[in-house]
Amino acid sequence: MSEPFASTRRKFLARTGALGITAGTASPPLAQTAQPPNVPEWMRAPGEPVLWRKYGLPSEFEQNVVRRFNPTRRMKVPGEGPSYTPLQDLHGTITPSGLVFERHHSGIPNIDPAQHRLMVHGLVKQPMVFSIEDLARFPSVSRIYFLECSGNTNTEYRAPVAKSVQESHGLFSNCEWTGVMLSTILEQVGLQPDAHWILAEGADAAAMTRSVPIAKCLDDAMLVYTQNGEALRPEQGYPLRLLLPGWEGNMSIKWLRRIKVASEPFMTREETSKYTDLMPDGRSRQFSFLMEAKSVITFPSAGHKLKERGFYEISGLAWSGSGRISRVHVSIDGGRNWREAQIQEPILSRAAVRFSLPWRWEGGEAILQSRVIDETGYVQPTRQQIISVRGTGPWFYHNNAIQSWKVSPSGEITNVHT
Amino acid sequence: MSEPFASTRRKFLARTGALGITAGTASPPLAQTAQPPNVPEWMRAPGEPVLWRKYGLPSEFEQNVVRRFNPTRRMKVPGEGPSYTPLQDLHGTITPSGLVFERHHSGIPNIDPAQHRLMVHGLVKQPMVFSIEDLARFPSVSRIYFLECSGNTNTEYRAPVAKSVQESHGLFSNCEWTGVMLSTILEQVGLQPDAHWILAEGADAAAMTRSVPIAKCLDDAMLVYTQNGEALRPEQGYPLRLLLPGWEGNMSIKWLRRIKVASEPFMTREETSKYTDLMPDGRSRQFSFLMEAKSVITFPSAGHKLKERGFYEISGLAWSGSGRISRVHVSIDGGRNWREAQIQEPILSRAAVRFSLPWRWEGGEAILQSRVIDETGYVQPTRQQIISVRGTGPWFYHNNAIQSWKVSPSGEITNVHT
Repeated sequence: MSEPFASTRRKFLARTGALGITAGTASPPLAQTAQPPNVPEWMRAPGEPVLWRKYGLPSEFEQNVVRRFNPTRRMKVPGEGPSYTPLQDLHGTITPSGLVFERHHSGIPNIDPAQHRLMVHGLVKQPMVFSIEDLARFPSVSRIYFLECSGNTNTEYRAPVAKSVQESHGLFSNCEWTGVMLSTILEQVGLQPDAHWILAEGADAAAMTRSVPIAKCLDDAMLVYTQNGEALRPEQGYPLRLLLPGWEGNMSIKWLRRIKVASEPFMTREETSKYTDLMPDGRSRQFSFLMEAKSVITFPSAGHKLKERGFYEISGLAWSGSGRISRVHVSIDGGRNWREAQIQEPILSRAAVRFSLPWRWEGGEAILQSRVIDETGYVQPTRQQIISVRGTGPWFYHNNAIQSWKVSPSGEITNVHT
Repeated sequence: MSEPFASTRRKFLARTGALGITAGTASPPLAQTAQPPNVPEWMRAPGEPVLWRKYGLPSEFEQNVVRRFNPTRRMKVPGEGPSYTPLQDLHGTITPSGLVFERHHSGIPNIDPAQHRLMVHGLVKQPMVFSIEDLARFPSVSRIYFLECSGNTNTEYRAPVAKSVQESHGLFSNCEWTGVMLSTILEQVGLQPDAHWILAEGADAAAMTRSVPIAKCLDDAMLVYTQNGEALRPEQGYPLRLLLPGWEGNMSIKWLRRIKVASEPFMTREETSKYTDLMPDGRSRQFSFLMEAKSVITFPSAGHKLKERGFYEISGLAWSGSGRISRVHVSIDGGRNWREAQIQEPILSRAAVRFSLPWRWEGGEAILQSRVIDETGYVQPTRQQIISVRGTGPWFYHNNAIQSWKVSPSGEITNVHT
C-alpha cells in the first residue's frame, strides 16, 4: 500500500542548502528519476496497541519539552520555588496542563478530594462549609484565562540573563478553567454590609494567604476545580483553587480551604514583606494586583538558531490583565520601525493570543521585539520607561517590558537589552 | 496560620440531608459552637517539591478518569480499535491530550520526527518532500476544532447498550490544533488543472489511506503538528496529521507521509468496504464526509447518581461539522417540552460548545435530552427520523440522534430509547 519516497533522506538533506530562498519556499523539487523504496521501519509491523496508555503522554522524542527550574535560584524552604513553562517549544495559545508553570511556597500537598472542604466565614450572614461535590452542584462556567506570576521576567531587569524565553517569560500559562463564580458562593453565604475584603487560604503547608478586594470577588473571580477539561493538576491546586483573572498568579490561591470575609485587608506575609513593589523613594507599593499588558516573541527566541536565510514566521504571545488586546506590533530593528502583527482569533478577555508576522531573514543582524496595546489603550512599556518610574532595583515584580532578541549573522538568537 | 474548620467532616456529612432543597442552595450553615481544630494531614509538612514532575500528571485520586475500550468489541488485527474519552468526568470544552479518543487501524507507530517526511506528488507542477522542520517554517494557524469518529454512537442504533456517555459518545474530542494550511502547501507544489482529489496516506503499518476532494483541501484543511499547545501525541499522529475540520475523524489521516494529487478518488479500502453508509435499498452512500450537528448531555448521564433532590445543573456538549451552533434545547420530559439552554462563549465554527440548563430535581422520573440547531438551520434528528431514512441496520456510521438519559426516582441515571 505504501509507495516509495522518491528521495532518500541523505539525498534530501544534501539538497536543503537551497531551502527557503524566497518567502514561502520549502524544500526543493524531487528528482524525477526512480529511487529505491523508502518504507520506514515503523510501517513494517503493527505499532503499540490502542490503550497502550489509558492516559496519554508525549512522544519519547519530545522529552526535552519539560518544565525547568531557574538554574540561578536556590530553594529557600522545602518544596518552595518556581518551575517554568517551555514557551519556546509551544504553539497556539493553550498550555497543556503537564507544562503549566509552578510556584509553590511549601510544596504540593496530596489532597483527598473527598475529605477536602472550603469554609466561608467572617462577615457573612451564614457561615458555610462546602465539599467539592457541593461546589460542583452550583452553576458552572468555563473560561480561558492566562495566569502569570508577578515575578515573571524579574531576572531581566538589570541585565539580560535568561538563556531562553522559558527562563525569561516561562512563569506564564494559559488554560481553560471551569468552576463556580465566587459571586455565586458569596451570594449563598450572604455578605454583611461592611464586607470589603476576603482572606483566601490554601491547604498547603505554607497555608498561603492573600487578601482580595470584594469587588474582584463579585466580578470575575472563580472557584475552579477543572483545568483544560479535567480535574486540576496537584501542582495547580487540586482539588480547588481560587482564580482571579488578570491578577498576579500568587493570589489565585491553590488548594483553597478557607475564605474569611472582613472589612479590611489581612496584611499577610505575602502582601507585606513579599509581593510588594519597592519604589525609588524607599516606599513600597502594596496590593499591585493587576498584570498589565505584555507580549513576547517565542519564535525565534534565545536558544533557537536560524539555519539559513529565507522565510520565517515570527510568532509570539500577548496578553493583558485589563481585558482584550487590540494590537500587537513587531520590530525587527530594535524598535525603530514597527509593523502590525496578525492576531489569531478568538481574542478573549484576559487570555493569551498568538500573534505572527512573516519575515524574510537576509542573514544580517536583527533585533526582534514585540509590543502589545490592549483595549484600554495601554501600551507595553520599554525597560527604560519602567526604570524611569520604579528605579533599578534591587528587586522587581511586574516587569512587563518589551523583550529584545538579537539575531546574529550566524543565525544564533540571544537575549539582549537595547 | 490555619484556622479550624468549624464543623468536623462527620457532623458535616450528618447534615447534608438538607443539601440542595432550593435552586442554588449548597451545604447547611455551620453550627456556631466551637469545634476542635481540623488541620488536615497534608498541611502538617511540606508537600512534594517544585518539579516533582517535569511533565505533570493528574492526581492519584483521578485514576479512574481514563480512556477505555468498548468491552463489547474485539480487536480484529493487532493494534486495531478505538478507545473512548471519559466525557462524563470532563468539564469545559477542551479535551486534555491524554484523554483524546483513539481509533487506530494497525497500532501506533513510534516515529522519529527527524526522519519523517511528507511527500506531495501526482498532478502537481513540482513534486516536493517536506521535513517537519520545513513545514514548521511556513505561516502557521491555531484553531480549536472537534474531532469525531464516524462510528461514534454506532452501538446505540437498535438498543441503548452503552453504560456511560463515554461508551456512547466518547469517540469525540475537542482540541486546539496548530499547523500549516494545506492550501499553503498545495500552492507551493502547484496544482495541475485536473487536480480534483488527493490521496492522504499515513505512516502506520496499515498505511491508512483516504481520498479527499480538493475543495476541502483548499478550504480549511490543515497539516497539524501541534495539539493543545505541544507536539501531537503519538496516538494522535505524531509528528504530523491531516486535519479536516468537521469531517469524519478517520479522514484526518494520522502520521501523514504522503499526499498524491489526482483527478479521481482512489477508492481505497476505507472508502469502499469501510466508512460507507448502507441504505435500506441495499446501496451504500459513499464519501459521506460531514459530521452533522450533534449534542449530548454529559451530566447527569448514565452511571451518575443523583444523591438527593434539589438543584442540579444539566450540562453537555454540542457541535456541528457545518459551522457554528446556534441554539441548544434541553428537555426533561423525553422531548415533549424543550427549554433553551445557555451556551458558553466563545462559539467557534466546527468546535465543541458547553451548554447548561439549571434544573431542580423533585425526585420523580425524568428523561433528559438535548437537541442542537446549527447556523445552517439543521436540527439534530431523533433516532426515529434517522431510521425513517436509513433503515435499522445492520451497521451505522453517522448516528447523531438525540440521546436520552432516564432519571429514576432512586436517582440512578440510565441509557434509554424513547
